[in-house]
Amino acid sequence: MEKLIITAAICGAEVTKEHNPNVPYTIEECVREAGLAYEAGASIIHLHVREDDGTPTQSKDRFKAVMDAIHAKYPDVIIQPSTGGAVGMSNDERLQPTELNPEMATLDCGTLNFGGDEIFENTENTIKYFGEKMIERGIKPELEVFDKSMIDMALRLHKKGFIQSPMHFDFVMGVNGGISGTLRDFVFLRESIPADATYTVAGIGRFEFPLAVAAIIDGGHVRVGFEDNTMIAKGQVAESNGQLVEKVVRLAKELGREIANPTEAREILGLKQR
Amino acid sequence: MEKLIITAAICGAEVTKEHNPNVPYTIEECVREAGLAYEAGASIIHLHVREDDGTPTQSKDRFKAVMDAIHAKYPDVIIQPSTGGAVGMSNDERLQPTELNPEMATLDCGTLNFGGDEIFENTENTIKYFGEKMIERGIKPELEVFDKSMIDMALRLHKKGFIQSPMHFDFVMGVNGGISGTLRDFVFLRESIPADATYTVAGIGRFEFPLAVAAIIDGGHVRVGFEDNTMIAKGQVAESNGQLVEKVVRLAKELGREIANPTEAREILGLKQR
Amino acid sequence: MEKLIITAAICGAEVTKEHNPNVPYTIEECVREAGLAYEAGASIIHLHVREDDGTPTQSKDRFKAVMDAIHAKYPDVIIQPSTGGAVGMSNDERLQPTELNPEMATLDCGTLNFGGDEIFENTENTIKYFGEKMIERGIKPELEVFDKSMIDMALRLHKKGFIQSPMHFDFVMGVNGGISGTLRDFVFLRESIPADATYTVAGIGRFEFPLAVAAIIDGGHVRVGFEDNTMIAKGQVAESNGQLVEKVVRLAKELGREIANPTEAREILGLKQR
Amino acid sequence: MEKLIITAAICGAEVTKEHNPNVPYTIEECVREAGLAYEAGASIIHLHVREDDGTPTQSKDRFKAVMDAIHAKYPDVIIQPSTGGAVGMSNDERLQPTELNPEMATLDCGTLNFGGDEIFENTENTIKYFGEKMIERGIKPELEVFDKSMIDMALRLHKKGFIQSPMHFDFVMGVNGGISGTLRDFVFLRESIPADATYTVAGIGRFEFPLAVAAIIDGGHVRVGFEDNTMIAKGQVAESNGQLVEKVVRLAKELGREIANPTEAREILGLKQR
Ligand SMILES: [Mg+2]
Ligand SMILES: [Mg+2]
Ligand SMILES: [Zn+2]
Ligand SMILES: [Zn+2]
Ligand SMILES: [Zn+2]
Ligand SMILES: [Zn+2]
Repeated sequence: MEKLIITAAICGAEVTKEHNPNVPYTIEECVREAGLAYEAGASIIHLHVREDDGTPTQSKDRFKAVMDAIHAKYPDVIIQPSTGGAVGMSNDERLQPTELNPEMATLDCGTLNFGGDEIFENTENTIKYFGEKMIERGIKPELEVFDKSMIDMALRLHKKGFIQSPMHFDFVMGVNGGISGTLRDFVFLRESIPADATYTVAGIGRFEFPLAVAAIIDGGHVRVGFEDNTMIAKGQVAESNGQLVEKVVRLAKELGREIANPTEAREILGLKQR
Repeated sequence: MEKLIITAAICGAEVTKEHNPNVPYTIEECVREAGLAYEAGASIIHLHVREDDGTPTQSKDRFKAVMDAIHAKYPDVIIQPSTGGAVGMSNDERLQPTELNPEMATLDCGTLNFGGDEIFENTENTIKYFGEKMIERGIKPELEVFDKSMIDMALRLHKKGFIQSPMHFDFVMGVNGGISGTLRDFVFLRESIPADATYTVAGIGRFEFPLAVAAIIDGGHVRVGFEDNTMIAKGQVAESNGQLVEKVVRLAKELGREIANPTEAREILGLKQR
Repeated sequence: MEKLIITAAICGAEVTKEHNPNVPYTIEECVREAGLAYEAGASIIHLHVREDDGTPTQSKDRFKAVMDAIHAKYPDVIIQPSTGGAVGMSNDERLQPTELNPEMATLDCGTLNFGGDEIFENTENTIKYFGEKMIERGIKPELEVFDKSMIDMALRLHKKGFIQSPMHFDFVMGVNGGISGTLRDFVFLRESIPADATYTVAGIGRFEFPLAVAAIIDGGHVRVGFEDNTMIAKGQVAESNGQLVEKVVRLAKELGREIANPTEAREILGLKQR
Repeated sequence: MEKLIITAAICGAEVTKEHNPNVPYTIEECVREAGLAYEAGASIIHLHVREDDGTPTQSKDRFKAVMDAIHAKYPDVIIQPSTGGAVGMSNDERLQPTELNPEMATLDCGTLNFGGDEIFENTENTIKYFGEKMIERGIKPELEVFDKSMIDMALRLHKKGFIQSPMHFDFVMGVNGGISGTLRDFVFLRESIPADATYTVAGIGRFEFPLAVAAIIDGGHVRVGFEDNTMIAKGQVAESNGQLVEKVVRLAKELGREIANPTEAREILGLKQR
């Protein structure tokens, strides 16, 4: 089985210091959390950025400042900015971090409810546009899918040339509005992707570690981090993203799966070595 | 195996006379199509209405006029108005036909892409509101789901009291933006609903008859009609909704499944007899 | 979707004239039943043989006599003898019909209960031996599997060289002792075979036609015949194997699937044209 | 989620001191291995017995001696003797340990290959006989199933009164001749049992710990032990059955699942408290 790529989603757009005081806002905090995750075994940092007061932003400048600061200290880690943005943003606003030509970026493959009155909008035309821009800019998309229909959409747009293979998926599971996080759901999604595709799984909340082990034993990859879950165990707030990554590493070791470093992760994902 | 309930979706909001000249717009045309479907074996008419020029509307008056005209000629058929509405409508505008206290009405259980720039919006709060109104008005909802996540949403809102059991689902499969229409997709959805629930399947386009037979052999129910598919076979435009229903009836007979009349359909669905 | 190959299992080892007076024992009866099946649309005749009094036999001479008689009248039909044999037979006794170098023959991929005290024995060593002999004799095996474990066995022996690819499976479903015949079972088996494999499904008893339509819509192939089922509908004894094939043909036509003739079946299965 | 029942299969019929010098043969060795497993967290000891020289036996006296010795030291542990026996034994020979009225015993639900020329024979009539005897003797059967067909058999015999509900299954996965040990296989079996049933999973060889975590996160139960696997990690022979149990306990703790003691296990399985 190939080595395990761990992605740390250190920040997120919706989680705040109210949920966990260690959620990073400032550049220094982002470097700290990225570093702890990296040192624990993460080879990819999935990144959202905020102003120092915690306000989420897609500002190219802010992304550049944070990415540069992380790379200054951890030059080989893969940084994967989010293009999720926020309600009301234009496509180009959301795409700002891709102008920095990162190795990877997320590409959300459909529209869904996020609870209450909220909708996370990604129309077919938006997905096409994001796909084209990522091809132009030499970025490997992490295809975020919240249900089977989004895999179907990705496969359709792959056939039309908007997404290149080998495709890399992120199964986001357990969100209110998306697919639940049972093993049965996981196996169904996992069998819906092409034979040459790779995937990571992001279990939300209490689904984080159960789905992490599912992916570990299945040969997939794992995403953890404050964006998805802020607890190290039931009732116990995590000290850092590093602590969440450490737990995945322990589980992988028990199960005989080795951890990929960034060089190995690039190899597995077909990214150019830096 | 219980008898087969056939629903005819005779009209739809997006299909027009350009696709098939037999798509009904006027009251007379709706009565004609409902009647042909009913005589062929449909016990439920799923209904959208339009102005005479084909413009879709959620007008309570128009719904009343069409429903009364159908019931005048076919008094026992179950009429199930759509609450889908159109982009930009308020919840109450969409809910107008439910003020007529029909026996059933559709309740869409999530938000998804419909291709291009289009989003079919049904936020969690909208679903809750529709659920409450239907309980108030004594209407059994047909829970339209376009993917697994919408079943998860329905189950969550059922637990919170917004939807009553036994639940009745409609798996809409093969839409661009929703789950695909393979047998594997069908089996996955079908196994995701509670043991006491019933379901019908609406295969879109070329998926209509394959998914109809899947439901026939599985003990589920079937929806066909111009809303979902306008072709009786590859390259052959259907003459009427009745012709589509007849084909389902032939397939059911070959497979040993009897057809439910409206009285039997009410029994199966737990509706009051009229 | 490729054309539909229909196999007629006209005789079987366990079904008798008590079940259905049209079950063939004599050479003339076998020719009659094969002919009716062929004329109705079958391109493969799956063959067991018996003495005139109905006693099952694996005699090479009897197989030769029946096969020659069928080919004399229907020269292009594919004849697929069974190597199932009977309790207590040696491997070589069971393999007698393969000495006639037929195009295909069945190869049972595991051991299972057949009800009561009966066991259908096919040890791993037997399967290997049958596989080797079929490779030597240029015969394409139809890999009979009664559950998932038998697919796993076939894949393991394929890796070891005892079975060549592309593999062709027969899912025998609904036997007491084998896997049941639900859609869920079907989809599970169907997804367990390699991408380059083909399959047919043999639904036993009441599962015959439901599983036939499952395979028709899924792009698989279908086996029917007195060996598997003697009834044309609930409570109605079939007049001939031809009548069973005709029903499959009607269902395929309704579902837009064309029927393969023997030349097309050879093409699909990778057999040499005669 | 209910607490996790760990079963230790400390001995087995086929594994020997050649595989692992700690495999127990003598009474003292059995007590040692049972004790280490129990102290690590196992609440059930699944038991085969042997003569001091390692020869497997179904002798009632030997079972009594070993069971008494274990209970003398660990009075509350649940002992579950095997009725698997060996090739050529009669049903009553195999059933000898059930004459001791243990709380549980295994009941194999079908016949399958065990590699080479070996067949593990359990005809339908054998299964019925074992079922009846266990009902008579007040024993809860652990229904060993090696594939889906064996679940179907158990359900059929349950309907006929040979097995009582709530049923408790053991999915034995990864044997040459049985179903493989992928997550997909696991989920399929797991969804094939009744809603009121419980299950444990016994992953053979390298499947032991991957399937253990699958069951841990799914709410099932886990069997480990020398019978199934003698390695604590790739290339590392286990020191004891206790070491295997400890690893399951560590994994369960990481995943937030508590361990059942024998009293809690009896509660979960519906056994009388002693
Ligand atoms: Mg909007
Ligand atoms: Mg024998
Ligand atoms: Zn994110
Ligand atoms: Zn509609
Ligand atoms: Zn046969
Ligand atoms: Zn055992």
